[in-house]
Amino acid sequence: MEEFLQSEEYATHAIALLEDRGVSLEDIAECARYLQADYHVDLRTEELLDSVKKVISKREVQFAIMTAVELDRQAEKGTMVDKELENLVESDAPLYGTDEVLAYGICNLYGSIALTNFGFIDKKKYGVIDRLNREGKKKGICHTFLDDIVGAIAAAAASRFAHRWER
Amino acid sequence: MEEFLQSEEYATHAIALLEDRGVSLEDIAECARYLQADYHVDLRTEELLDSVKKVISKREVQFAIMTAVELDRQAEKGTMVDKELENLVESDAPLYGTDEVLAYGICNLYGSIALTNFGFIDKKKYGVIDRLNREGKKKGICHTFLDDIVGAIAAAAASRFAHRWER
Amino acid sequence: MEEFLQSEEYATHAIALLEDRGVSLEDIAECARYLQADYHVDLRTEELLDSVKKVISKREVQFAIMTAVELDRQAEKGTMVDKELENLVESDAPLYGTDEVLAYGICNLYGSIALTNFGFIDKKKYGVIDRLNREGKKKGICHTFLDDIVGAIAAAAASRFAHRWER
Amino acid sequence: MEEFLQSEEYATHAIALLEDRGVSLEDIAECARYLQADYHVDLRTEELLDSVKKVISKREVQFAIMTAVELDRQAEKGTMVDKELENLVESDAPLYGTDEVLAYGICNLYGSIALTNFGFIDKKKYGVIDRLNREGKKKGICHTFLDDIVGAIAAAAASRFAHRWER
Repeated sequence: MEEFLQSEEYATHAIALLEDRGVSLEDIAECARYLQADYHVDLRTEELLDSVKKVISKREVQFAIMTAVELDRQAEKGTMVDKELENLVESDAPLYGTDEVLAYGICNLYGSIALTNFGFIDKKKYGVIDRLNREGKKKGICHTFLDDIVGAIAAAAASRFAHRWER
Repeated sequence: MEEFLQSEEYATHAIALLEDRGVSLEDIAECARYLQADYHVDLRTEELLDSVKKVISKREVQFAIMTAVELDRQAEKGTMVDKELENLVESDAPLYGTDEVLAYGICNLYGSIALTNFGFIDKKKYGVIDRLNREGKKKGICHTFLDDIVGAIAAAAASRFAHRWER
Repeated sequence: MEEFLQSEEYATHAIALLEDRGVSLEDIAECARYLQADYHVDLRTEELLDSVKKVISKREVQFAIMTAVELDRQAEKGTMVDKELENLVESDAPLYGTDEVLAYGICNLYGSIALTNFGFIDKKKYGVIDRLNREGKKKGICHTFLDDIVGAIAAAAASRFAHRWER
Repeated sequence: MEEFLQSEEYATHAIALLEDRGVSLEDIAECARYLQADYHVDLRTEELLDSVKKVISKREVQFAIMTAVELDRQAEKGTMVDKELENLVESDAPLYGTDEVLAYGICNLYGSIALTNFGFIDKKKYGVIDRLNREGKKKGICHTFLDDIVGAIAAAAASRFAHRWER
């Protein structure tokens, strides 16, 4: 064992996990566009796609995606060892909070604007985040970690875009 | 020198600074109420006041308030040594970001819900935060740090309230 | 479902998980004492025990413990869905980093001194943290998340003690 | 007013501030080397210099340096409006903590390894950090913020180096 993938292979793996869970890079770029719309009215989703890809090219983001999807899947399948934890994750308990902790691990890499963006989109539940959140309430589907991770990637991509635009 | 105040004396000092800059504890409690309104429709501002006071009873919060007000005042009076910094703070440059870093130092003490609350109210600019933000655009007035600190205290107080309510 | 435990029940549950994984509250208190030893030479482990219990009485700490132990156990048993993630966690890959992200979720609640304490003890690997780290290298045993969580609780308890002592 | 510098101009400005306060980029690179020495015994200071420069090329790092130096200088000159704050900063009060909050704003941009590195070097006080710390105890000299900012840049540069090395 102990043979690790290359960083680009982890990126491919993480993107495949997102797609398997129903989230495309375009979905995330559209959330990032929404976050920037106040500042750039005419921005198109495609213009944010590159920032989304750059965010996902970071190792810590790839590992956060993998960990988040694993926890959602284990809760969904009912295969967690700790049934109290499974109950919390499966029902997206409002004070659980560990899902947001993982998300902040992504936002922090893109500075304070990314954190502010995340707080906003997490409350507004725009686009794919809203869809994930609603689907996750159905029996046998759990997106407790994923909706926060997607929000964090969008928040980070929007922050990255804002910083580059200023230059 | 090197004689420090007691923690309660710093609390009194920090509250006096806030009032001197035009912010009452009730103003902050009203922002905290707004953040909780989705979950508790009938909540009254007074019910959040105790949480606001508890947040300000923490030393790190007191020191963040003192540091924030100092930087605003120095920018306002034009007495900073570094005129590039003075320009950034005085004009509330959107990508400055250090004001939010100080604010996160407060939110972090109250967990991930406080961080999410902060991101939301920072974008919505509710109540006193909106007033500070508008006043700060006038010549000779600077609230670049203060509006974020006030948002952070409100976000922390709302998170504290939510955690206690659940018990 | 959706019947959650009371906060004290989660505390009992989290402490039982720690003990099941070979970590006593005294082990953690001894790490906290080590962190404070420069400032209080005569401090005894028992004096830190109350701080350790107070840290674990916080809901977000309980949930972090539960999540960390779950991920370690799944890696240990080889029951993760994502085998790339399992490989990373099982071998404690140095750049994985999500274990530290969870740990910082605990430290942040106790301010900047807790974060500094954590960085120090994480590198020094004192006491039970060293033991967990060495045991975790054996085949079939995984403490990738647990050693960081234990370090974070010790760091938080030491910070809490330092703040109270000053008063 | 409201004419901001370009990002490269802020970098030049921030580096000049560091040098004016007695810190060279080589001093910081040497701290970063120390942090990586366990993993790469033969590493030379020059090899870390590029990472230090890259860290300082980030806007949020430049602004943190500027804010930190301003607060140290105001405390040094005795020109703060708030004399309680001046006393805390001038005497580097151990529980002040806002200096570390600013430093974490830098570390967070480079992930969890940077945070761990910072905690370690902040306690060990290696190289220029030790010198700043000792000098800052003299009457009329204040490095309360600067030593943490320097530690954070070194911690971030070491983390950046570690991540690139693995690729």
